[in-house]
Amino acid sequence: MKKEFDLSLYLVTDRPLAGERDIEWIVEEAVKGGATIVQLREKDCSTSTFVDLARRLKERLINYNIPLIINDRIDIALAVDAEGVHIGQSDMPYDIARQLLGPDKIIGLSVENMEEVEKANLLDVDYIGISPVFSTPTKTDTAQPFGLDGTREAMKISNHRAVAIGGMNQETIEDVMKCGVEGVAVVSAIVAAQSPYNAAIKLKEIITKTRCK
Amino acid sequence: MKKEFDLSLYLVTDRPLAGERDIEWIVEEAVKGGATIVQLREKDCSTSTFVDLARRLKERLINYNIPLIINDRIDIALAVDAEGVHIGQSDMPYDIARQLLGPDKIIGLSVENMEEVEKANLLDVDYIGISPVFSTPTKTDTAQPFGLDGTREAMKISNHRAVAIGGMNQETIEDVMKCGVEGVAVVSAIVAAQSPYNAAIKLKEIITKTRCK
Repeated sequence: MKKEFDLSLYLVTDRPLAGERDIEWIVEEAVKGGATIVQLREKDCSTSTFVDLARRLKERLINYNIPLIINDRIDIALAVDAEGVHIGQSDMPYDIARQLLGPDKIIGLSVENMEEVEKANLLDVDYIGISPVFSTPTKTDTAQPFGLDGTREAMKISNHRAVAIGGMNQETIEDVMKCGVEGVAVVSAIVAAQSPYNAAIKLKEIITKTRCK
Repeated sequence: MKKEFDLSLYLVTDRPLAGERDIEWIVEEAVKGGATIVQLREKDCSTSTFVDLARRLKERLINYNIPLIINDRIDIALAVDAEGVHIGQSDMPYDIARQLLGPDKIIGLSVENMEEVEKANLLDVDYIGISPVFSTPTKTDTAQPFGLDGTREAMKISNHRAVAIGGMNQETIEDVMKCGVEGVAVVSAIVAAQSPYNAAIKLKEIITKTRCK
Protein backbone atom coordinates (compact mmCIF):
# COMPACT_ATOMS: atom_id res chain seq x y z
CA MET A 1 0.00 0.00 0.00
CA LYS A 2 1.18 3.48 -0.75
CA LYS A 3 2.35 5.40 2.28
CA GLU A 4 0.68 8.69 3.06
CA PHE A 5 2.78 11.73 2.38
CA ASP A 6 2.60 15.40 3.18
CA LEU A 7 3.50 17.90 0.48
CA SER A 8 3.33 21.03 2.60
CA LEU A 9 7.05 21.86 2.80
CA TYR A 10 8.81 20.00 0.01
CA LEU A 11 12.60 20.40 -0.01
CA VAL A 12 14.47 19.97 -3.30
CA THR A 13 18.25 19.66 -2.97
CA ASP A 14 20.80 21.53 -5.04
CA ARG A 15 24.47 20.73 -4.58
CA PRO A 16 25.92 23.90 -6.16
CA LEU A 17 23.72 26.03 -3.87
CA ALA A 18 24.83 24.02 -0.85
CA GLY A 19 28.39 25.16 -1.42
CA GLU A 20 30.80 23.60 1.05
CA ARG A 21 28.03 22.30 3.29
CA ASP A 22 26.93 18.66 3.33
CA ILE A 23 23.62 17.99 1.62
CA GLU A 24 22.80 15.46 4.36
CA TRP A 25 23.27 18.07 7.05
CA ILE A 26 21.12 20.64 5.24
CA VAL A 27 18.39 18.07 4.66
CA GLU A 28 18.35 16.90 8.27
CA GLU A 29 18.25 20.47 9.58
CA ALA A 30 15.37 21.28 7.21
CA VAL A 31 13.48 18.20 8.34
CA LYS A 32 13.98 19.10 12.00
CA GLY A 33 12.59 22.51 11.09
CA GLY A 34 9.51 21.07 9.44
CA ALA A 35 10.21 19.91 5.87
CA THR A 36 7.74 17.12 5.12
CA ILE A 37 9.22 15.48 2.02
CA VAL A 38 12.65 15.60 0.34
CA GLN A 39 13.63 15.35 -3.29
CA LEU A 40 17.25 14.55 -4.15
CA ARG A 41 18.11 16.27 -7.40
CA GLU A 42 21.54 15.63 -8.89
CA LYS A 43 22.41 16.53 -12.42
CA ASP A 44 26.16 16.21 -12.82
CA CYS A 45 27.45 13.33 -10.78
CA SER A 46 28.30 9.71 -11.46
CA THR A 47 25.74 7.01 -10.80
CA SER A 48 27.81 5.61 -7.91
CA THR A 49 28.04 9.03 -6.23
CA PHE A 50 24.29 9.51 -6.72
CA VAL A 51 23.54 6.10 -5.19
CA ASP A 52 25.83 6.78 -2.22
CA LEU A 53 24.22 10.12 -1.50
CA ALA A 54 20.72 8.73 -1.91
CA ARG A 55 21.51 5.88 0.47
CA ARG A 56 22.93 8.21 3.11
CA LEU A 57 19.91 10.52 2.86
CA LYS A 58 17.50 7.62 3.06
CA GLU A 59 19.21 6.40 6.25
CA ARG A 60 18.79 9.81 7.84
CA LEU A 61 15.23 10.40 6.66
CA ILE A 62 13.96 7.04 7.81
CA ASN A 63 14.41 8.20 11.43
CA TYR A 64 11.98 11.04 10.78
CA ASN A 65 9.54 9.03 8.65
CA ILE A 66 10.11 11.53 5.82
CA PRO A 67 9.84 10.19 2.25
CA LEU A 68 12.82 10.44 -0.10
CA ILE A 69 11.96 11.26 -3.69
CA ILE A 70 14.60 10.89 -6.43
CA ASN A 71 14.65 13.32 -9.33
CA ASP A 72 14.40 11.59 -12.73
CA ARG A 73 16.52 8.49 -12.07
CA ILE A 74 14.35 5.40 -11.58
CA ASP A 75 17.49 3.26 -11.24
CA ILE A 76 18.68 5.27 -8.24
CA ALA A 77 15.22 5.11 -6.67
CA LEU A 78 15.14 1.34 -7.11
CA ALA A 79 18.72 0.96 -5.87
CA VAL A 80 18.01 2.59 -2.51
CA ASP A 81 14.30 1.74 -2.29
CA ALA A 82 13.36 5.42 -2.18
CA GLU A 83 9.72 6.26 -1.59
CA GLY A 84 9.34 7.68 -5.08
CA VAL A 85 10.57 9.68 -8.04
CA HIS A 86 9.86 13.06 -9.47
CA ILE A 87 9.85 13.21 -13.24
CA GLY A 88 9.90 16.12 -15.62
CA GLN A 89 8.42 16.21 -19.09
CA SER A 90 11.71 15.07 -20.66
CA ASP A 91 12.46 12.38 -18.10
CA MET A 92 11.21 8.79 -18.09
CA PRO A 93 7.69 8.61 -19.58
CA TYR A 94 5.17 8.22 -16.77
CA ASP A 95 3.78 4.85 -17.85
CA ILE A 96 7.22 3.24 -17.88
CA ALA A 97 8.13 4.86 -14.57
CA ARG A 98 5.00 3.42 -12.96
CA GLN A 99 5.65 0.02 -14.46
CA LEU A 100 9.22 -0.06 -13.13
CA LEU A 101 8.36 1.29 -9.68
CA GLY A 102 5.07 -0.46 -9.05
CA PRO A 103 1.84 0.92 -7.63
CA ASP A 104 3.13 1.67 -4.12
CA LYS A 105 5.77 4.27 -4.97
CA ILE A 106 5.09 7.99 -5.16
CA ILE A 107 5.44 9.51 -8.63
CA GLY A 108 5.34 13.26 -9.06
CA LEU A 109 5.25 14.99 -12.42
CA SER A 110 6.29 18.53 -13.34
CA VAL A 111 3.78 20.43 -15.46
CA GLU A 112 4.89 23.56 -17.24
CA ASN A 113 1.68 24.79 -18.87
CA MET A 114 -2.09 24.27 -18.85
CA GLU A 115 -1.94 21.62 -21.56
CA GLU A 116 0.39 19.53 -19.41
CA VAL A 117 -1.89 20.06 -16.40
CA GLU A 118 -4.76 18.62 -18.45
CA LYS A 119 -2.68 15.73 -19.76
CA ALA A 120 -1.58 14.90 -16.23
CA ASN A 121 -5.26 14.48 -15.32
CA LEU A 122 -5.26 11.35 -17.47
CA LEU A 123 -2.40 9.80 -15.48
CA ASP A 124 -2.51 8.42 -11.96
CA VAL A 125 0.45 10.50 -10.81
CA ASP A 126 0.50 11.09 -7.07
CA TYR A 127 1.04 14.81 -7.33
CA ILE A 128 1.98 17.46 -9.86
CA GLY A 129 4.67 20.12 -9.51
CA ILE A 130 3.52 23.44 -10.94
CA SER A 131 6.76 24.64 -12.46
CA PRO A 132 7.72 27.39 -12.28
CA VAL A 133 5.33 29.69 -10.47
CA PHE A 134 7.84 32.52 -10.61
CA SER A 135 11.06 32.75 -12.60
CA THR A 136 14.06 31.56 -10.64
CA PRO A 137 17.82 31.51 -10.97
CA THR A 138 17.98 27.88 -9.70
CA LYS A 139 16.68 26.38 -12.91
CA THR A 140 17.48 28.09 -16.16
CA ASP A 141 15.73 25.64 -18.49
CA THR A 142 12.24 26.26 -17.22
CA ALA A 143 9.22 27.40 -19.15
CA GLN A 144 7.21 30.61 -18.92
CA PRO A 145 6.18 31.07 -15.26
CA PHE A 146 2.55 30.34 -14.26
CA GLY A 147 2.34 33.35 -11.96
CA LEU A 148 -0.34 33.48 -9.27
CA ASP A 149 -3.23 33.65 -11.73
CA GLY A 150 -1.88 30.71 -13.71
CA THR A 151 -1.37 28.68 -10.56
CA ARG A 152 -4.94 29.37 -9.45
CA GLU A 153 -6.19 28.39 -12.90
CA ALA A 154 -4.07 25.20 -12.90
CA MET A 155 -5.52 24.20 -9.55
CA LYS A 156 -9.04 24.63 -10.92
CA ILE A 157 -8.25 22.35 -13.85
CA SER A 158 -6.17 19.73 -12.07
CA ASN A 159 -7.56 16.71 -10.28
CA HIS A 160 -4.24 16.05 -8.56
CA ARG A 161 -2.57 17.15 -5.37
CA ALA A 162 -0.01 19.82 -6.19
CA VAL A 163 3.11 21.61 -5.04
CA ALA A 164 4.24 24.92 -6.42
CA ILE A 165 7.89 25.38 -7.35
CA GLY A 166 9.99 28.32 -8.55
CA GLY A 167 10.65 31.42 -6.50
CA MET A 168 9.16 30.07 -3.27
CA ASN A 169 10.34 32.01 -0.21
CA GLN A 170 9.07 33.71 2.94
CA GLU A 171 7.72 36.61 0.91
CA THR A 172 5.89 34.61 -1.77
CA ILE A 173 4.49 31.43 -0.27
CA GLU A 174 1.46 32.88 1.49
CA ASP A 175 0.00 34.12 -1.80
CA VAL A 176 0.94 30.90 -3.54
CA MET A 177 -0.67 28.69 -0.90
CA LYS A 178 -3.87 30.68 -1.35
CA CYS A 179 -3.97 29.51 -4.97
CA GLY A 180 -4.98 26.08 -3.72
CA VAL A 181 -1.75 24.11 -3.82
CA GLU A 182 -1.10 21.64 -1.05
CA GLY A 183 2.43 22.78 -0.49
CA VAL A 184 5.46 24.56 -1.84
CA ALA A 185 8.72 23.12 -3.12
CA VAL A 186 11.69 25.09 -1.92
CA VAL A 187 15.27 25.04 -3.12
CA SER A 188 17.41 28.07 -2.37
CA ALA A 189 15.21 29.43 0.45
CA ILE A 190 16.41 26.48 2.51
CA VAL A 191 19.54 25.12 0.81
CA ALA A 192 21.24 28.51 0.63
CA ALA A 193 19.91 29.79 3.97
CA GLN A 194 22.44 30.46 6.72
CA SER A 195 20.33 28.24 8.96
CA PRO A 196 18.32 25.69 6.98
CA TYR A 197 16.63 24.78 10.27
CA ASN A 198 15.42 28.31 10.98
CA ALA A 199 14.45 28.82 7.35
CA ALA A 200 12.32 25.68 7.40
CA ILE A 201 10.64 26.69 10.67
CA LYS A 202 9.73 30.09 9.29
CA LEU A 203 8.42 28.69 5.99
CA LYS A 204 6.45 25.96 7.72
CA GLU A 205 4.87 28.53 10.03
CA ILE A 206 3.59 30.54 7.07
CA ILE A 207 2.32 27.41 5.31
CA THR A 208 0.50 26.15 8.39
CA LYS A 209 -1.01 29.55 9.10
CA THR A 210 -2.21 29.97 5.51
CA ARG A 211 -3.74 26.50 5.48
CA CYS A 212 -5.76 27.11 8.63
CA LYS A 213 -7.40 30.21 7.27
CA MET B 1 18.07 -18.34 -19.04
CA LYS B 2 20.74 -15.99 -20.20
CA LYS B 3 21.03 -15.73 -23.96
CA GLU B 4 24.33 -16.59 -25.57
CA PHE B 5 26.23 -13.61 -26.87
CA ASP B 6 29.24 -13.05 -29.08
CA LEU B 7 31.75 -10.40 -28.06
CA SER B 8 33.90 -10.55 -31.18
CA LEU B 9 32.96 -7.22 -32.77
CA TYR B 10 31.43 -5.07 -30.07
CA LEU B 11 30.15 -1.68 -31.29
CA VAL B 12 29.91 1.22 -28.84
CA THR B 13 27.93 4.22 -30.06
CA ASP B 14 29.04 7.82 -29.80
CA ARG B 15 26.65 10.55 -30.89
CA PRO B 16 29.18 13.39 -31.29
CA LEU B 17 31.31 11.13 -33.54
CA ALA B 18 28.24 10.22 -35.59
CA GLY B 19 27.84 13.85 -36.58
CA GLU B 20 24.78 14.38 -38.77
CA ARG B 21 24.21 10.69 -39.34
CA ASP B 22 21.57 8.69 -37.49
CA ILE B 23 22.88 6.40 -34.80
CA GLU B 24 20.29 3.80 -35.85
CA TRP B 25 21.57 3.80 -39.40
CA ILE B 26 25.20 3.47 -38.33
CA VAL B 27 24.35 0.63 -35.97
CA GLU B 28 22.33 -1.27 -38.56
CA GLU B 29 25.05 -0.89 -41.18
CA ALA B 30 27.65 -2.11 -38.67
CA VAL B 31 25.50 -5.11 -37.80
CA LYS B 32 25.02 -5.98 -41.46
CA GLY B 33 28.80 -5.80 -41.75
CA GLY B 34 29.37 -8.16 -38.83
CA ALA B 35 29.07 -6.36 -35.47
CA THR B 36 27.95 -8.96 -32.94
CA ILE B 37 26.80 -6.85 -29.99
CA VAL B 38 25.91 -3.16 -29.58
CA GLN B 39 26.31 -0.84 -26.63
CA LEU B 40 24.31 2.39 -26.57
CA ARG B 41 26.34 5.00 -24.76
CA GLU B 42 24.76 8.41 -24.19
CA LYS B 43 26.17 10.93 -21.79
CA ASP B 44 24.39 14.21 -22.39
CA CYS B 45 20.78 13.62 -23.27
CA SER B 46 17.52 13.61 -21.38
CA THR B 47 16.10 10.35 -20.08
CA SER B 48 13.21 10.51 -22.54
CA THR B 49 15.55 10.95 -25.51
CA PHE B 50 17.72 8.09 -24.24
CA VAL B 51 14.67 5.81 -23.88
CA ASP B 52 13.42 6.69 -27.37
CA LEU B 53 16.78 5.97 -28.96
CA ALA B 54 17.20 2.73 -27.01
CA ARG B 55 13.73 1.59 -28.07
CA ARG B 56 14.38 2.37 -31.73
CA LEU B 57 17.73 0.54 -31.65
CA LYS B 58 16.20 -2.45 -29.89
CA GLU B 59 13.52 -2.69 -32.59
CA ARG B 60 16.18 -2.76 -35.31
CA LEU B 61 18.55 -5.14 -33.53
CA ILE B 62 15.88 -7.69 -32.72
CA ASN B 63 15.66 -8.50 -36.43
CA TYR B 64 19.32 -9.50 -36.42
CA ASN B 65 19.24 -11.25 -33.02
CA ILE B 66 21.94 -8.84 -31.82
CA PRO B 67 21.92 -7.94 -28.12
CA LEU B 68 21.54 -4.32 -27.06
CA ILE B 69 23.63 -3.28 -24.07
CA ILE B 70 22.97 0.05 -22.32
CA ASN B 71 25.85 2.03 -20.87
CA ASP B 72 25.45 2.77 -17.15
CA ARG B 73 21.69 3.41 -16.99
CA ILE B 74 19.83 0.46 -15.48
CA ASP B 75 16.57 2.40 -15.74
CA ILE B 76 16.91 2.71 -19.52
CA ALA B 77 17.81 -0.98 -19.82
CA LEU B 78 14.72 -1.93 -17.80
CA ALA B 79 12.52 0.50 -19.73
CA VAL B 80 13.27 -1.08 -23.11
CA ASP B 81 14.05 -4.61 -21.87
CA ALA B 82 17.58 -4.40 -23.27
CA GLU B 83 19.70 -7.53 -23.10
CA GLY B 84 22.09 -5.96 -20.60
CA VAL B 85 24.10 -3.08 -19.26
CA HIS B 86 27.72 -2.10 -19.29
CA ILE B 87 28.92 -0.46 -16.10
CA GLY B 88 32.09 1.43 -15.32
CA GLN B 89 33.77 1.67 -11.95
CA SER B 90 31.84 4.84 -11.05
CA ASP B 91 28.48 3.61 -12.33
CA MET B 92 25.93 1.51 -10.45
CA PRO B 93 27.70 -0.91 -8.10
CA TYR B 94 27.65 -4.40 -9.62
CA ASP B 95 25.66 -6.10 -6.86
CA ILE B 96 22.82 -3.59 -7.12
CA ALA B 97 22.87 -3.75 -10.92
CA ARG B 98 22.51 -7.54 -10.78
CA GLN B 99 19.75 -7.32 -8.23
CA LEU B 100 17.78 -4.84 -10.36
CA LEU B 101 18.33 -6.67 -13.65
CA GLY B 102 18.06 -10.26 -12.50
CA PRO B 103 20.22 -13.24 -13.41
CA ASP B 104 19.31 -13.40 -17.10
CA LYS B 105 20.65 -10.04 -18.21
CA ILE B 106 24.18 -9.47 -19.46
CA ILE B 107 26.32 -7.26 -17.23
CA GLY B 108 29.71 -6.10 -18.44
CA LEU B 109 32.18 -4.23 -16.25
CA SER B 110 35.03 -1.94 -17.28
CA VAL B 111 38.33 -2.65 -15.55
CA GLU B 112 41.05 -0.04 -15.69
CA ASN B 113 43.94 -1.74 -13.88
CA MET B 114 45.10 -5.14 -12.62
CA GLU B 115 43.56 -4.62 -9.20
CA GLU B 116 40.15 -4.13 -10.81
CA VAL B 117 40.72 -7.23 -12.98
CA GLU B 118 41.29 -9.21 -9.79
CA LYS B 119 38.30 -7.71 -8.02
CA ALA B 120 36.10 -8.50 -11.02
CA ASN B 121 37.06 -12.17 -10.56
CA LEU B 122 34.99 -12.15 -7.39
CA LEU B 123 31.87 -10.98 -9.25
CA ASP B 124 29.73 -12.98 -11.65
CA VAL B 125 29.92 -10.33 -14.35
CA ASP B 126 29.35 -11.71 -17.83
CA TYR B 127 32.39 -10.06 -19.35
CA ILE B 128 34.97 -7.43 -18.58
CA GLY B 129 35.99 -4.51 -20.77
CA ILE B 130 39.75 -3.93 -20.64
CA SER B 131 39.82 -0.16 -20.78
CA PRO B 132 41.71 1.38 -22.37
CA VAL B 133 44.20 -0.80 -24.23
CA PHE B 134 45.57 2.23 -26.04
CA SER B 135 44.97 5.89 -25.34
CA THR B 136 42.10 7.31 -27.35
CA PRO B 137 40.55 10.65 -28.13
CA THR B 138 36.99 9.21 -27.70
CA LYS B 139 37.15 9.06 -23.93
CA THR B 140 39.23 11.62 -22.12
CA ASP B 141 38.54 10.41 -18.57
CA THR B 142 40.21 7.05 -18.95
CA ALA B 143 43.02 5.59 -16.91
CA GLN B 144 46.58 4.69 -17.90
CA PRO B 145 46.38 2.37 -20.95
CA PHE B 146 47.01 -1.38 -20.46
CA GLY B 147 49.03 -1.67 -23.67
CA LEU B 148 49.53 -5.09 -25.25
CA ASP B 149 51.63 -6.46 -22.38
CA GLY B 150 49.08 -5.30 -19.82
CA THR B 151 46.22 -6.79 -21.81
CA ARG B 152 48.03 -10.14 -22.04
CA GLU B 153 48.70 -10.01 -18.30
CA ALA B 154 45.05 -9.11 -17.55
CA MET B 155 43.88 -12.07 -19.59
CA LYS B 156 46.13 -14.39 -17.59
CA ILE B 157 44.67 -13.10 -14.33
CA SER B 158 41.03 -12.82 -15.34
CA ASN B 159 38.54 -15.66 -15.20
CA HIS B 160 36.05 -13.72 -17.34
CA ARG B 161 35.36 -13.33 -21.01
CA ALA B 162 36.80 -10.02 -22.17
CA VAL B 163 36.68 -7.33 -24.80
CA ALA B 164 39.42 -4.82 -25.36
CA ILE B 165 38.52 -1.16 -25.79
CA GLY B 166 40.48 1.99 -26.60
CA GLY B 167 42.28 2.59 -29.89
CA MET B 168 40.82 -0.45 -31.65
CA ASN B 169 41.12 -0.19 -35.44
CA GLN B 170 42.22 -2.14 -38.50
CA GLU B 171 45.87 -1.62 -37.61
CA THR B 172 45.71 -2.59 -33.96
CA ILE B 173 43.15 -5.36 -33.48
CA GLU B 174 45.20 -8.29 -34.75
CA ASP B 175 47.82 -7.79 -32.03
CA VAL B 176 45.14 -7.15 -29.43
CA MET B 177 43.18 -10.31 -30.30
CA LYS B 178 46.39 -12.30 -29.86
CA CYS B 179 46.47 -11.17 -26.22
CA GLY B 180 43.61 -13.55 -25.55
CA VAL B 181 40.57 -11.30 -25.54
CA GLU B 182 37.36 -12.65 -27.07
CA GLY B 183 36.68 -9.51 -29.01
CA VAL B 184 37.29 -5.83 -29.50
CA ALA B 185 35.04 -2.90 -28.70
CA VAL B 186 35.09 -0.31 -31.40
CA VAL B 187 33.88 3.26 -31.37
CA SER B 188 35.34 5.65 -33.94
CA ALA B 189 36.65 2.94 -36.30
CA ILE B 190 33.00 2.26 -37.15
CA VAL B 191 30.98 5.29 -35.99
CA ALA B 192 33.22 7.79 -37.77
CA ALA B 193 33.93 5.59 -40.81
CA GLN B 194 32.64 6.78 -44.17
CA SER B 195 30.99 3.38 -44.58
CA PRO B 196 30.24 1.77 -41.20
CA TYR B 197 29.25 -1.35 -43.16
CA ASN B 198 32.60 -1.67 -44.93
CA ALA B 199 34.49 -0.80 -41.76
CA ALA B 200 32.68 -3.56 -39.85
CA ILE B 201 33.34 -6.10 -42.61
CA LYS B 202 37.04 -5.33 -42.61
CA LEU B 203 37.33 -5.44 -38.81
CA LYS B 204 35.35 -8.66 -38.57
CA GLU B 205 37.57 -10.25 -41.21
CA ILE B 206 40.70 -9.51 -39.16
CA ILE B 207 39.05 -10.75 -35.95
CA THR B 208 37.87 -13.99 -37.55
CA LYS B 209 41.24 -14.63 -39.18
CA THR B 210 43.13 -13.99 -35.93
CA ARG B 211 40.82 -16.30 -33.98
CA CYS B 212 41.27 -19.19 -36.39
CA LYS B 213 45.04 -19.13 -36.12
